[in-house]
Amino acid sequence: MNFSLLQPAVRVSFGAGAFERIEGEISALGRSRVMLVASASLSAARERLQGVLDDRCVAVVSSVRQHVPAEDARGALEGARAAEADCVVAIGGGSAIGLGKAVLLDSETSLVAVPTTYSGSEMTPIYGITTGEGKRTGRDERARPDAVVYDPELTTSLPADETAASGMNALAHCVEAAYAPDRSPVASLLSTEGARLLFRALPTAVGAPGNIEARREAMLGGFYAGWALGLTTMGPHHRICHVLGGSFRISHGLANAVMLPYVVSLEAGDAGSELEPIADVFGVTVASLPRAIRDFVASLGSPTDLTAIGFDVRDAPEAARLVTTTSDPDGARFDIEELLRRACEGTLADRG
Amino acid sequence: MNFSLLQPAVRVSFGAGAFERIEGEISALGRSRVMLVASASLSAARERLQGVLDDRCVAVVSSVRQHVPAEDARGALEGARAAEADCVVAIGGGSAIGLGKAVLLDSETSLVAVPTTYSGSEMTPIYGITTGEGKRTGRDERARPDAVVYDPELTTSLPADETAASGMNALAHCVEAAYAPDRSPVASLLSTEGARLLFRALPTAVGAPGNIEARREAMLGGFYAGWALGLTTMGPHHRICHVLGGSFRISHGLANAVMLPYVVSLEAGDAGSELEPIADVFGVTVASLPRAIRDFVASLGSPTDLTAIGFDVRDAPEAARLVTTTSDPDGARFDIEELLRRACEGTLADRG
Repeated sequence: MNFSLLQPAVRVSFGAGAFERIEGEISALGRSRVMLVASASLSAARERLQGVLDDRCVAVVSSVRQHVPAEDARGALEGARAAEADCVVAIGGGSAIGLGKAVLLDSETSLVAVPTTYSGSEMTPIYGITTGEGKRTGRDERARPDAVVYDPELTTSLPADETAASGMNALAHCVEAAYAPDRSPVASLLSTEGARLLFRALPTAVGAPGNIEARREAMLGGFYAGWALGLTTMGPHHRICHVLGGSFRISHGLANAVMLPYVVSLEAGDAGSELEPIADVFGVTVASLPRAIRDFVASLGSPTDLTAIGFDVRDAPEAARLVTTTSDPDGARFDIEELLRRACEGTLADRG
Repeated sequence: MNFSLLQPAVRVSFGAGAFERIEGEISALGRSRVMLVASASLSAARERLQGVLDDRCVAVVSSVRQHVPAEDARGALEGARAAEADCVVAIGGGSAIGLGKAVLLDSETSLVAVPTTYSGSEMTPIYGITTGEGKRTGRDERARPDAVVYDPELTTSLPADETAASGMNALAHCVEAAYAPDRSPVASLLSTEGARLLFRALPTAVGAPGNIEARREAMLGGFYAGWALGLTTMGPHHRICHVLGGSFRISHGLANAVMLPYVVSLEAGDAGSELEPIADVFGVTVASLPRAIRDFVASLGSPTDLTAIGFDVRDAPEAARLVTTTSDPDGARFDIEELLRRACEGTLADRG
């Protein structure tokens, strides 16, 4: 199997206490005028960093919405320009980091990503912006964070349900990297290790959110998952989740948790051997993987059908239409409407 | 465990037929005046590429000596300058790529590395230049190749003994990455995968040098080993091998094959748990790893004592002195002279 690996520079600090290194990362990038972006739930971390940066902090965005609404992106960009910021530090999940990326796309700032979930966004050039017409996602190297600071201590306050949902988002990155059209030995190595760590750590991280060792492992798993995500093109699962999020306001993490077993039940036929390393992680055969993933989701206390997370089965035709009209023709391989109906009912066809 | 990952951009093409992509890599780098460096044994590949590049090939170095003698480095640099080369393409093992790196250190050229052994040099900023006073090795980001093209078909003509020696050099990179002072989960993941592939592929690659699947696996293993090497600081094993090569003219690959079990027998005490993933690859405990590695070397038909590869036991005191006076104080942890004496006699102290 032939492959190419085109990996831009990676600059990562990982570990308990890594938060203290943010200041050094800003200096290493030669930046001194910082716009801080942080979710409201992370105001304590934001204020701590504001104190450290003092007058180098020239702007603050202190609340962040899901799916990066276009007006928020515009507002953040105008704020950065008005304050003459040369660096964005984004503390939070995929939404905060996504807002930072939106600023990068139209300015000459640098981005230091400080993830507090397992979204993996910090390791990719993938951005998403949502308008009234839905969520537009794309890849642009200008959107790639310049440095990443992973501090597991920032995740001990992530509630159990968000931990489960975000962890399933990361696990879905590992799964779709395994059968991606541009999969490679490197992406497989990273995604398998990510899945192994997430599978082992998430039950403890959900059951005891303050367990720092489980948080460390889950975060390391999310890092590998994000790295694999950045090296591959995501498949039908992610296109479905982006439509559910962008057009039907379903939380991205929850959509991932619910949909993954259903998409895997279809992929297990086409992409059987590619899924073997993931099935090994779950200790099952590929044929039994969809059910094993659903059991895992249920064990994390997360919903396992679409109705439970606010999706109306009557929207299935429109959602399927939006998924299949996205750019990648691969989206049409499956009957997405049927898949969404089954995900609403919670009926997982067995293949094993 | 905390870590930093500072990985410059990686640009790799891997697979049978990748040789055809060299031209594209030169163009992608925006270069058009190529100096070709190739070992004499690779003249067929060199001539093939010369034909493709035609008048974009402005200089040729058609023989390469081990350990990069300083006069060869000077000659290559002068040749590149005289021909106004803007790119070096180095086809060969660590010596050819090392000569290319020496040119990079003092010029503004780019380097496309086309490895034909498992030295890993293509993935690192490590260079080495040998004078009458010994081999000087160092790290300099200017010496890092800009692109790497791995074509396993180039390795089917590598003789069995060189395959074994170079494979053991790669395996030694995996082992020393495992207990390096700057080891990290990422380096461990890469080095363990490298060791797994090398352990599996080398017996077939040595027994049937034309087996392309074994060559592909061994080359992939060498790539991971080289990546791990680039991320970590090598330890006593590599310092010993560089002294044996630079000051006593012992082949770098053979020195690696002979010395690794001896160094591991010492490290197995200090670095026990770090060596567990490598011991797992060999299917043994850490305590039994030195003997398992020596049995593996013997099974590849490679010498297992220093006397057999031309080292005189009377040089042990001087070699030990040179090893312990290298910059890293870590070199003084062990009794190197005693280690070299035992490696001459072939007496491996058991720990198990």
